Amino acid sequence: MLDLMRSLAVENTTKIVLLSLDGLGGLPRGETGRSELETARIPNLNALAAASACGLLRHVAPGITPGSGPGHLGLFGYDPLAYQVGRGVLEALGIEFDLRGGDVAARGNFCTVDGAGLITDRRAGRIATDVCVRLTERLRTIQLPGVELMVEPVKEHRFVLVLRGTGLSGRLSETDPQAVGKAPLAVRALDAAATRSAELVNAFVDEARRRLADAAPANMILLRGFDQLPDLPRFPEVYGLRAAAIAAYPMYRGLAKLVGMDVLKTGGSFADEIATLREHWQAYDFFFVHYKDTDKAGEDGDFDAKVAALERFDAFVPAVRDLGPDVLVVSGDHSTPSVLAAHGWQPVPALVWSRYCGADPVTAFTERACAAGTLGLLPAHHLMPIVMANALRLTKFGA
Amino acid sequence: MLDLMRSLAVENTTKIVLLSLDGLGGLPRGETGRSELETARIPNLNALAAASACGLLRHVAPGITPGSGPGHLGLFGYDPLAYQVGRGVLEALGIEFDLRGGDVAARGNFCTVDGAGLITDRRAGRIATDVCVRLTERLRTIQLPGVELMVEPVKEHRFVLVLRGTGLSGRLSETDPQAVGKAPLAVRALDAAATRSAELVNAFVDEARRRLADAAPANMILLRGFDQLPDLPRFPEVYGLRAAAIAAYPMYRGLAKLVGMDVLKTGGSFADEIATLREHWQAYDFFFVHYKDTDKAGEDGDFDAKVAALERFDAFVPAVRDLGPDVLVVSGDHSTPSVLAAHGWQPVPALVWSRYCGADPVTAFTERACAAGTLGLLPAHHLMPIVMANALRLTKFGA
Repeated sequence: MLDLMRSLAVENTTKIVLLSLDGLGGLPRGETGRSELETARIPNLNALAAASACGLLRHVAPGITPGSGPGHLGLFGYDPLAYQVGRGVLEALGIEFDLRGGDVAARGNFCTVDGAGLITDRRAGRIATDVCVRLTERLRTIQLPGVELMVEPVKEHRFVLVLRGTGLSGRLSETDPQAVGKAPLAVRALDAAATRSAELVNAFVDEARRRLADAAPANMILLRGFDQLPDLPRFPEVYGLRAAAIAAYPMYRGLAKLVGMDVLKTGGSFADEIATLREHWQAYDFFFVHYKDTDKAGEDGDFDAKVAALERFDAFVPAVRDLGPDVLVVSGDHSTPSVLAAHGWQPVPALVWSRYCGADPVTAFTERACAAGTLGLLPAHHLMPIVMANALRLTKFGA
Repeated sequence: MLDLMRSLAVENTTKIVLLSLDGLGGLPRGETGRSELETARIPNLNALAAASACGLLRHVAPGITPGSGPGHLGLFGYDPLAYQVGRGVLEALGIEFDLRGGDVAARGNFCTVDGAGLITDRRAGRIATDVCVRLTERLRTIQLPGVELMVEPVKEHRFVLVLRGTGLSGRLSETDPQAVGKAPLAVRALDAAATRSAELVNAFVDEARRRLADAAPANMILLRGFDQLPDLPRFPEVYGLRAAAIAAYPMYRGLAKLVGMDVLKTGGSFADEIATLREHWQAYDFFFVHYKDTDKAGEDGDFDAKVAALERFDAFVPAVRDLGPDVLVVSGDHSTPSVLAAHGWQPVPALVWSRYCGADPVTAFTERACAAGTLGLLPAHHLMPIVMANALRLTKFGA
């Protein structure tokens, strides 16, 4: 599909805005039988849906719950099963660590082991973030020959380990046995080229055990999701679009950077993001604008907060329409139903507005209504081709 | 997809019931413009549909009419185009023949040939089953060096031939020229490893011709669908489910056994099957329950009988719901529209009920209504991932 895009993309002056509501899709709550979208007062989204082609996006595959990485890659037009990004890399992007080509990143957990070295708590009782910061400082003092080691605190028991040097490989097995009562596993090289990397990581873990011996409950570490920066096709080249990302949260800035978008400096609120959009309107053809509040409320299992987040978002829609985009897309990277208090597998409502989007029976932006839309139920990575077509930026296939 | 399931499946205590109505889908009859499902009084299925995510299943590919083998493999999550099971194997499963790894099975027909050896009737006038039994006894006396031969009667002119021994191969061409006025074909080896098997089968056919010379109209045989037991991924391992099959008919027990389900002993009626389900409720996570009457009526071209079969099934739905499954699925292995009096290519209604199945506009369990459901029109082998998700038995893909 990306090759097809590359071969059919043509120049135009049209402008595209993709508004991504993180964790957009939801589920009905028992009392009312209505989902968050069906409960919220979202007149601007509903009016936009009535004028748009609507449908439901599936980001990975039926029944599969997408993480934020696969969810966004799908929205950007990359099949998440074909382009996989390791957890270590995503974690590094999430703290805006300046990961470079060749670096190996892993997601780390502090954990608790007993006297026999067996795990008793895989998250070390979720130690406070300031404890995590202090303990990562201990780990930073570890030195190994021929490699630069970086240890960055994240939140609570989480940290990122990065190895920088030549000839490293991320093809490494994980040390987390995913169960208590077992000892952490040694890292194994998953191919011959990773032998030295495995030895380095195992040496690091041995040394970490020594330095954390007196730090119970955080007296050991677990490492998983080893990976290097993937070499993804660059979004601006594939689509011939000057592309900008506007996102308050580091993870989403990182994902946009991963595909080669320009990441614009913005403030911490969605109003700031919209101001940034307005400011850079002339300089780009494509804007990815990320809205976090819906996911946060869903993850908290707070139905009413998610409804409120949808209503706050709705109020910004006119401002975006006033800018006069040629194609306006509203969707999300995955569902986060409040009743699950977690990401879900449910397909995500999507709308594509343009002068050429076609007649569509949908008049409300909800899960149920969008099921009847002319976009149908489509893989998320098929959305960008439809967006490009609506922007009159694709030429005919075949004569 | 099976690999993805294997990598994402997690443990849980949730219970799944898959009710498969054989030949479920139908077509409107001219007089009323309503299909069998649209004619039947099925209040329990309609109420369940109203609370479920609905859609239409396509088992093989658009326009393709599935046999029972591919139809069920699709329901179990196996792409029927990737996992093909030969007709000889299916026929052997259908009579509960204890087929072993390495055996080569073929579907046989008695046929009629004239003095010149040309076929005048490919089904030998559909001889009575007792004649078939008598003639297979003649064929059983045939002996060939280095191989054990088994000939089992099926119904009317049909029988199963099984070759057992070492180094056999099912890569053999068929002897049935699929036309009258032609001579039966010799079997050809489709690859080098099948040379000896071809010679053995040709020797068997020659000998059969001699032994049946005086048995007109059943004075010759035709063989097709040579195959060996396929090595399918095992359902319980792929999904991490203790899986049981409840089916009164041998074919469906055989298909379930083929993917490694436990086949439960049950009686001949659907009431018996439901009693078996209740009895084993604690011992399994997943139950495949098969209902045959809908297909039988459809194959007979008996619209009213199919309507009655749907209504009889509907009456059992409350008993299944009372068991308290976490996920309840109702669908079928293919359509059998009464107006076709045969399997059809039409997609098959499907519903998935769980606490997390989502809002869906469908309120009736019919072909037409399910077309507007949030499951969309989906390959049957994508149903199991959705079922696993609804059972909260899949972890997130990517971070």
